[in-house]
Amino acid sequence: MLTFSGIEEARRRLAGVAIRTPVLRSRQFDESADASVFFKAENLQRAGAFKFRGAYNKLKAETETSRVTEVVAYSSGNHAQAVALVSKILGLKATIVMPSDAPAAKLAATREYGAEVVLYDRYSESRDDIGQRLVRERGALLVPPFDDYRIMAGAATAAVELLEEVPDLDALVVPVSGGGLIAGCAFAARHLRPEIAVYGTEPVTAADTADSLAKGERVVIETPRTIADGLQVSSPGRLTFPIVQETVEAVLLVSDDEMIETLCWMLERMKVLVEPSGVAGAAAVRHRKADFAGRKVGVILSGGNVDRDKLAFYLATAAAT
Amino acid sequence: MLTFSGIEEARRRLAGVAIRTPVLRSRQFDESADASVFFKAENLQRAGAFKFRGAYNKLKAETETSRVTEVVAYSSGNHAQAVALVSKILGLKATIVMPSDAPAAKLAATREYGAEVVLYDRYSESRDDIGQRLVRERGALLVPPFDDYRIMAGAATAAVELLEEVPDLDALVVPVSGGGLIAGCAFAARHLRPEIAVYGTEPVTAADTADSLAKGERVVIETPRTIADGLQVSSPGRLTFPIVQETVEAVLLVSDDEMIETLCWMLERMKVLVEPSGVAGAAAVRHRKADFAGRKVGVILSGGNVDRDKLAFYLATAAAT
Repeated sequence: MLTFSGIEEARRRLAGVAIRTPVLRSRQFDESADASVFFKAENLQRAGAFKFRGAYNKLKAETETSRVTEVVAYSSGNHAQAVALVSKILGLKATIVMPSDAPAAKLAATREYGAEVVLYDRYSESRDDIGQRLVRERGALLVPPFDDYRIMAGAATAAVELLEEVPDLDALVVPVSGGGLIAGCAFAARHLRPEIAVYGTEPVTAADTADSLAKGERVVIETPRTIADGLQVSSPGRLTFPIVQETVEAVLLVSDDEMIETLCWMLERMKVLVEPSGVAGAAAVRHRKADFAGRKVGVILSGGNVDRDKLAFYLATAAAT
Repeated sequence: MLTFSGIEEARRRLAGVAIRTPVLRSRQFDESADASVFFKAENLQRAGAFKFRGAYNKLKAETETSRVTEVVAYSSGNHAQAVALVSKILGLKATIVMPSDAPAAKLAATREYGAEVVLYDRYSESRDDIGQRLVRERGALLVPPFDDYRIMAGAATAAVELLEEVPDLDALVVPVSGGGLIAGCAFAARHLRPEIAVYGTEPVTAADTADSLAKGERVVIETPRTIADGLQVSSPGRLTFPIVQETVEAVLLVSDDEMIETLCWMLERMKVLVEPSGVAGAAAVRHRKADFAGRKVGVILSGGNVDRDKLAFYLATAAAT
């Protein structure tokens, strides 16, 4: 079960290991969005994304109670890098199952952290099957990307830190993939500030959680195509979804163009690099997908890992529009 | 005269107006450079560069003692934006003389701040002549980009803040254009920590200050061609140079390729955007232009204003090498 004491445990484990990422502001962004926006810069987290928090909390807890020496993870990229880095820190052997079209920088970074990478085809193979087979064959511990209470508790610490610095937020906007980040952050935010409105954001082409909320149950969509490679899941998690149902106001949908525009604007004006998935929350506020006028809005910038050639493409795309 | 009390005055004027920019770290950069590097992120300063500090200090001081209502500045870009923004804050009319090949983003930002822009050809016209003519015709106050003690004192506050956070630096590395930033920073750093070694950095094709130091007097070179558009000056300043002679250990030279490599690395790994001129100090440390092994090194990242198309070009160049 996800509890606030589990989140507090995660905070203790992460102290001095995870970066307490800064909260960024921009006068110009505020003017463009007609809101006071506080960006929690998890793109500046270790391994370039919030994923480090959950992976470290999970694996540190496991090493405290069992004799785990080998781990397996499947991931579109940032979770892979996080598990690889955490394994290096904790002295574990890591095998990572990654889609063959994952950004080259993410593949390279995962290998640089000393992990073995096993590739699969995102559109024809099931990463779960491959991951489970590796677990059976190697007796390794599977580190799920989101559907795990310790992963959620670790991710939740980002929201706890943000609310410590800005306790009177009216709203919090969080990118939604499998739901680990938003379940953790929404649970923590509502615990600390019951009146806060928590919004998810998904690409319009990857609206599995929005659709599931509308239907009142988890739906499965086709593997979505979007530039936000971190948000390309087909269905919300079994454990994350009930928490999302209970704590989240609505899921706001953004287009690839809106994410590119926001990514390039933040790079040019705020001088920070955020990946498409990571910028989804900022894009939702900037393109006014809900009424944030005059409100204090927290936004989780969930990651910053972008390939050079893809970034060059985004810059060219944004310049042309 | 440049004095530490003048720098303390600048600090008081800038308090609550300039951003106290963060000091960034990177484990990976440290490993690559075999040093402990502390980046003072002036790319996150208002108007995207350290220039805001000097311009505000200068103009605020002027408005305290005279009835100035109109100002003129000539600049390759960042000084222009700073004077434009400061003029907007202080309610002054600003006219800015800019080279016609200045980055479009810098031209646009200068105009956005409400300044009038007058263009000139960097390779055939003298910006000083044009600036002086505007001063005569309009009775405006000229805000020089570097050769002014209040400009230097304002710039110096960046080094003061850095040394407050990291008092035991062994070295400080600062990009050199006309010398306002390095004269101010070196003066302040040596005042606060007499044993610190201060290094300048220039592009190999824009080594006017390195040449001047070697010769023992200010030399004039042809308008240099380099991607570091902020460092394209022909000669060190009349007022800055004697201070540089007294306080600076050496000027380290970096190539355009080394600046591009460092810019792209910092963007990809540290998720921050620094412009070529701004990254010159980091490039000198990363490419080991002096013996920084095992030392604590401060580096001023002086600015972060880059055109989108130029950034795309740098990314492509770095990917190809």
